[in-house]
Parts: sequence; C-alpha cells; structure tokens
Amino acid sequence: MNKEEIQSIIDELYLLSKKAYEDGEVPVSAILVTSNNRYTGYNQVEKNNNPFQHAEFIVINNYINDTKERYIKESSLFVSLEPCLFCMGAILKAGIKDLYYVLDDEKKGALSHYHIFVDDVLRVHRVEDNRFKELLQNFFIDKR
Amino acid sequence: MNKEEIQSIIDELYLLSKKAYEDGEVPVSAILVTSNNRYTGYNQVEKNNNPFQHAEFIVINNYINDTKERYIKESSLFVSLEPCLFCMGAILKAGIKDLYYVLDDEKKGALSHYHIFVDDVLRVHRVEDNRFKELLQNFFIDKR
Repeated sequence: MNKEEIQSIIDELYLLSKKAYEDGEVPVSAILVTSNNRYTGYNQVEKNNNPFQHAEFIVINNYINDTKERYIKESSLFVSLEPCLFCMGAILKAGIKDLYYVLDDEKKGALSHYHIFVDDVLRVHRVEDNRFKELLQNFFIDKR
Repeated sequence: MNKEEIQSIIDELYLLSKKAYEDGEVPVSAILVTSNNRYTGYNQVEKNNNPFQHAEFIVINNYINDTKERYIKESSLFVSLEPCLFCMGAILKAGIKDLYYVLDDEKKGALSHYHIFVDDVLRVHRVEDNRFKELLQNFFIDKR
C-alpha cells in the first residue's frame, strides 16, 4: 500500500472517529481493507452496553459473519488506537497480516502495556496523525 | 471456594467438555460462577462458523447481555483450557478476579505462550485433572 492510499484511509478513519465522538462513544474507529471489500466501524460500547463492542472487533466479526470465512486473507486493518488484548487476540485469530494504528495505548495496549510478541505473524505500522490525539483528549475533557 | 466446591464445578466442566466433543467442537468448556448465578457453555466455533465462539467468551458475553452489567463482581471463571489472548482480554475487560483452568496451552495460551502479566488484577489457579487432556487428545486423534 502506498503513502497516498494509506493517508486516504487514515482520513476516512478520522471521519469515523469523529462520528463515534458525536455518538458519545470513545472515539476509536477501524477500517478493514480486504482484497475485494472494505469494512468500517467505530466503538459501540455505550450504544450496546457491551465492553466487547470495540471498533476492530466489530469490523473483523462483521467480515467473518458476512463471508463465513474464519481467516481473512490479504487484509490490512487500520485502527485509530492501539488494540487492547481482546482486540489483538481477535486480529491474530483472524489471521490479519498488516496492522496500522495511530495512537499508542500505554495503559491497555497489547503491545505498549502487555508487551506481547507478534512479529512472527503480524506486521505492525505506526502512523503519525495528530488529529486523533486531540479528538480523544477532547472527548475525555467533555466527559468530566 | 473450598476444595469440594471446586471439584464439583470441575466435574460439571468435564460433562460440558464431553458435550462439546459429541457436538464435534474442540472440547473446551467454561463455567462462570457469580454471586447469584451460573453461566455454562462450551465452544461453538464449528456450529456458528465463527472463531470467536470460545467457551469463556460465550459465558462472559452471555452474563453481560443478560444483566446489562459490564463488569462482573465477585465471580470465578472455570475453563478446561488456558485462555487464548482474545479470551484473556475478555476476562480482564469483564473484571473477573479468579480464573481456574485445567490444561496449559503452550501454543496459544495468553500465559504459557504470550507470557502476559496479569498478577496485579487476576488470581490464576491451575487445577489438576487428567480427564481433560485425554478428551482433547482423543478429539484430535478422531479428526485425523
């Protein structure tokens, strides 16, 4: 995937995060790009009152339920925030090969906090984009 | 929880694992014991053609959907096999305090394979019971 393609997906990811924010959800969004389709989503934890309704789990699960395929071939997952342990488990289980994420999660991130080793199965790409941090910070300031 | 109570739940867990086996599912089962209820389940991966339908995720998710509570207070989770990363993520997210499991999973276990540190939030108890290993081995022999 080239730089322009990545930036275009990140822009779309930002719009989804903003939508989450407007819906009163923690503004985290995900886009799953497969060889012939695209699944987009954002957190639905508040709406469904369920802690497992994280953006990346939603898009992966939607793919699997739609296609009836348990493994996602040739796919890239874009997430605005580093995946938690639960979502990283879902990412590995689904066989995703490329993970792009913007913000580190020092408190709950599977990599930053739990330091799990995934280099043998997953390529992890960090993308710089200051808009997402600002959005997340504003969300928690609003909540106070 | 005393020894007799634990053994009684493990016996029930074994019956559930056997049921999974008979249904053609990888024989892994889970029992969630809360202060006023009990949720039981076993793998439904084949039935639902969904890799996330692991026993422990099913029982935790059922509890949350039933009660509309995102955190499970004063609860113990019993599982026949060490949780994978996805299920361990669900266990931590739900705030479970005591995890009892029988078999180690050196290949995919969150503790044995990924070596994640959970000692600050979760008490982990290993329970000895040879019946589960035999059941799991027989399942994979049958599958060959």
